[in-house]
Amino acid sequence: MAARPTARHVEALNKLSFVDFVGKLGNIVERCPVVAAAVWSERPFSSAQGVHEAACKFIDGLPTNGREGLLRCHPDLAGALAREGRLSSESTGEQRTAGLLDLTTEEQADISRLNARYKDKFGFPFVLCVRLNKRGAVLKGLKTRINNSKEDEIHTGIEEVKKICWLRLVDILQREQVDTISKL
Amino acid sequence: MAARPTARHVEALNKLSFVDFVGKLGNIVERCPVVAAAVWSERPFSSAQGVHEAACKFIDGLPTNGREGLLRCHPDLAGALAREGRLSSESTGEQRTAGLLDLTTEEQADISRLNARYKDKFGFPFVLCVRLNKRGAVLKGLKTRINNSKEDEIHTGIEEVKKICWLRLVDILQREQVDTISKL
Repeated sequence: MAARPTARHVEALNKLSFVDFVGKLGNIVERCPVVAAAVWSERPFSSAQGVHEAACKFIDGLPTNGREGLLRCHPDLAGALAREGRLSSESTGEQRTAGLLDLTTEEQADISRLNARYKDKFGFPFVLCVRLNKRGAVLKGLKTRINNSKEDEIHTGIEEVKKICWLRLVDILQREQVDTISKL
Repeated sequence: MAARPTARHVEALNKLSFVDFVGKLGNIVERCPVVAAAVWSERPFSSAQGVHEAACKFIDGLPTNGREGLLRCHPDLAGALAREGRLSSESTGEQRTAGLLDLTTEEQADISRLNARYKDKFGFPFVLCVRLNKRGAVLKGLKTRINNSKEDEIHTGIEEVKKICWLRLVDILQREQVDTISKL
C-alpha cells in the first residue's frame, strides 16, 4: 500500500467543484457516488482521514436498509461480472490483486456455490476487502461468515466497505489524480 | 404518461432477487442504485405506489448532506453531458422529450449560464422533472428558483427527484420490463 496522502493532495481536493469531486471520488464506495457527493458538503478537509471519516459517518448514519443497500451495490467476489470483465475498474484491480481472476475451476465452483448460499441467506453479497487479505481468504471468509447472524454480517460487511473505501481514496489522492489535482 | 402498473407487474417485482431488482430499478433515482437496493428490503410491495413510498421514505430519512448528495448525482439539464451524448438512457429520454436536446444557441447559452450560477450558489445542480413541465420550464424555473434559499432548494429539488423516480418506476414496470418480468 502506498504512503498516506500529503496535505498538498488534500488541499487540492478541497478546491474541487462537486462535479469534479464526484467525478474523481464517486466510486470510493462501489457504485454509490452519493457517498462522495454527500461528503463534499463536509469540506474543507484537513486530511485524507477526514474525508474517510466523513464517508464513514454518512454510512453509519444510514438506516439498516441503506447499509444493506450499500452492500447490495457490490459485485460478487470471483463472480459472474468478474468472469465477464464487467466489474468497475477499481473492483477489477482489487480482485486481480487477490488472485480472484485466476482461480482453478474447483476454487471457482466452491466460491460460486458459497456466494449463492450467502446471498440467499442474508439478502446481500459477501463483501471483503480483498487487498488486505491473502488469496485463500475469500473461501475461508465465506465458509466462516455464512454461519453468522444477519445483523453481524451487515456490521462486518460495512466495516469491509469502509476499508475498501480508504484504500480507494488513498489510491486516488496519490496515484491517479495527483497530476490533475496539482494543476488546479 | 402510461396507465398505472397492475398488480401482476408488482407481483413479478416482488419475486426478483436483489441482483435483478437493482439491475432493473437501479436508476429510478439518477446514478443512485443504493436507493433501489435499500428499497428491496421493504418487499413485498402491494402496489407500485408502495415501491415509490419506500424510496421516498429512504430519501427523506437521509441527512441533509445525503439529500444534497442525491441532487449532486444528477446531470445539468441541457448541459455538457447532454450535448456530448453521455447522459444515462433515462435522462436522455427525459431531456429529449422536454426539447432540451434541441435548443437554439441562445437558449442553450442562457441555460448554461444559469445552471452555472445555480450550482455556484447552492452547491448542487438544478433538478426539475422535465417530463411534467413544458419546454420553457427549465429556463423559467432556473430564473425563479435561483432566488430561493438553499434549504428551500434542497426541498424542491428532492421533491422533483421523487417525481422523476415515480415516472421511471412506472416506465420500467409497464414498458421495458414487462416481458421479462412476466416470464419469471
